[in-house]
Amino acid sequence: MIPPLGVPGDDRGLLLGDGLFETMLALDGDLPHLVAHLDRMAAGCVVLGLPFDRAEAQRLARAAAPAAGRFAVRLTLTAGSGGRGLDRPAAPAPRLFATAAPSAPATTPASLIVATTRRNEGSPASRLKTLSYLDNVLARAEAREAGADEAVMLNNRGEVACAGAANLFWISEGRLFTPRLDCGALAGITRARVLASRLVEEVMVGIEALEAADAIFLTNSLIGMRPVSRLGARPLAPHPLVEALKAAFG
Amino acid sequence: MIPPLGVPGDDRGLLLGDGLFETMLALDGDLPHLVAHLDRMAAGCVVLGLPFDRAEAQRLARAAAPAAGRFAVRLTLTAGSGGRGLDRPAAPAPRLFATAAPSAPATTPASLIVATTRRNEGSPASRLKTLSYLDNVLARAEAREAGADEAVMLNNRGEVACAGAANLFWISEGRLFTPRLDCGALAGITRARVLASRLVEEVMVGIEALEAADAIFLTNSLIGMRPVSRLGARPLAPHPLVEALKAAFG
Repeated sequence: MIPPLGVPGDDRGLLLGDGLFETMLALDGDLPHLVAHLDRMAAGCVVLGLPFDRAEAQRLARAAAPAAGRFAVRLTLTAGSGGRGLDRPAAPAPRLFATAAPSAPATTPASLIVATTRRNEGSPASRLKTLSYLDNVLARAEAREAGADEAVMLNNRGEVACAGAANLFWISEGRLFTPRLDCGALAGITRARVLASRLVEEVMVGIEALEAADAIFLTNSLIGMRPVSRLGARPLAPHPLVEALKAAFG
Repeated sequence: MIPPLGVPGDDRGLLLGDGLFETMLALDGDLPHLVAHLDRMAAGCVVLGLPFDRAEAQRLARAAAPAAGRFAVRLTLTAGSGGRGLDRPAAPAPRLFATAAPSAPATTPASLIVATTRRNEGSPASRLKTLSYLDNVLARAEAREAGADEAVMLNNRGEVACAGAANLFWISEGRLFTPRLDCGALAGITRARVLASRLVEEVMVGIEALEAADAIFLTNSLIGMRPVSRLGARPLAPHPLVEALKAAFG
């Protein structure tokens, strides 16, 4: 982790979680999905009502990517300084910075538990990668506490939404499923790439769908596709379709 | 606003909204409810699994309060630096700082709208004052957009929870009501003081309860008690019980 210069104590990202971030893979100085990440941050800024300097964000992300090796580049946009309490200033001036941290590929499958902490399907923030990420931190902490790698997050209606830091997919009777975005799932970059295959059905279902699945896997921008070996006490065997998808999408 | 020295760019409060805050009233250097605020931050740290240096928090809050005048003192606790992605380091070292900003008492009643952004009743964070406050920022922005002062937030079940930066109370047929904490309401300090009167019924109800109310008022640590003059298009007349409570609780 290369921390940038300090952020002022009146920054709205720091004080209120008012802002967005992106975590993208950097391979030997290349950011293969930079356009998709900038598109997502731009869309998030529209939802949050913040201006977005796309050229500056691109410049910072590229400058943060080390020339050699596999890194996670994190681009952070805060709503900037000022305002009074919850209210933003009349013309918010967002603060942008990027950092890089070494990122090893996942070489083992993941074990999952189901978190008690829920996703907030009733907030537009649940579809965005915002600086208000504490619910996901709490869900992940539940997983670590239980000796698992990741947590399945349900929404308040009890529908499957996502994992702490990944989208969820599963296979049942040869069909491929993932939660709909309005279940409270983040619009993941790898998720979108897999959906573009038109092999996947977006659904709104309870945990019983995952419990009955033949296979489960996670996607995010850093790990690509990671098979799941266990959901709670139930072991899951490797599945040829997951292996095929992993070979195709990375 | 007196911004403190900068916070490092790897701070988990800044990056993930991982932390807590308190906003308390300072009157001529005195912090009349400091014990209750420190108690709430201590309880929040237990829920979040963070250590709490109460003596240091108390020292910082007192040092931030100017000797003369009416101020809002904000005490911020972040989960500190480090960890990897969502996972905290093995021994988190929280970062504490306090700032003060002039705070005028509310002299006019508040107008309310009902926000579309919901409270996340399924997260323990909904009962805490956490640095992941974006849902409340969005709800407040909806109110400002509509020309109103504050937003009523419902939870995902459609029950009334709270306002953007205040607890909600209402009066119907001479009885006094407020949402239960498990509706997703923050455990407000002024709310607790009013509840201690044993005059209030904690309930789990939909927006129709507010729509049918004879009077509505807001409470928070800075404004004390603030009457509501309008909910959406419906005007609300001053109510003697609200005036009596305001005289009693400030």
